[in-house]
Amino acid sequence: MTHFMDVHHGMQGITAEQLHEAHQADLAVEKDEGVHFERAWADPRSGTVYCLSEGPSAEAVQRVHERAGHRADEIHEVPLTV
Amino acid sequence: MTHFMDVHHGMQGITAEQLHEAHQADLAVEKDEGVHFERAWADPRSGTVYCLSEGPSAEAVQRVHERAGHRADEIHEVPLTV
Repeated sequence: MTHFMDVHHGMQGITAEQLHEAHQADLAVEKDEGVHFERAWADPRSGTVYCLSEGPSAEAVQRVHERAGHRADEIHEVPLTV
Repeated sequence: MTHFMDVHHGMQGITAEQLHEAHQADLAVEKDEGVHFERAWADPRSGTVYCLSEGPSAEAVQRVHERAGHRADEIHEVPLTV
C-alpha cells in the first residue's frame, strides 16, 4: 500500500457541498478496490482538486474515481512524505 | 489565513532525506511570513512535489519557498477541504 495524490482539472466554481458529495461518492465504493481516500482540497478559482489516497495502485485509485463519476486527470504515486 | 497547495516540478529522483531537508528549510524561515508548512508529498519518478501550507497569501508562501531555495511552480489557494 502506498499513497497517491491525484489531480482533477476543470472544476471551476466547485462548492464545499459538491466537494463533500464527491468525497462521499469515493468513500462509498473504495473498499471494493482496497483504496481509502483520506483528504481532498479544492481551488474553485482555478478549478483544481487534489485528492490524497492510500491504495494498492494508481489504477485502483482511478477505478474508484471512475465508478464515483469523476475520473482523475493525473495520478502520482507519492511514496515520500513529511 | 487559508490553506495553499503548491507544486514543484523537475524534482526527479528526490530522496526522503532531500524532502526532509527541504521541508526543514521552509520551517526555519516560515515564521517571518506568518506561514506554516504542514505536510509535503513527493513523487520521485515524475519529479513532482506537493506542499500543503497555511498562510496569509500565495505570495507569502512563495517568499518562504524562495528564501529556502526552492521556488514553487504553481500555488493554489485551497479554501475547500474534506
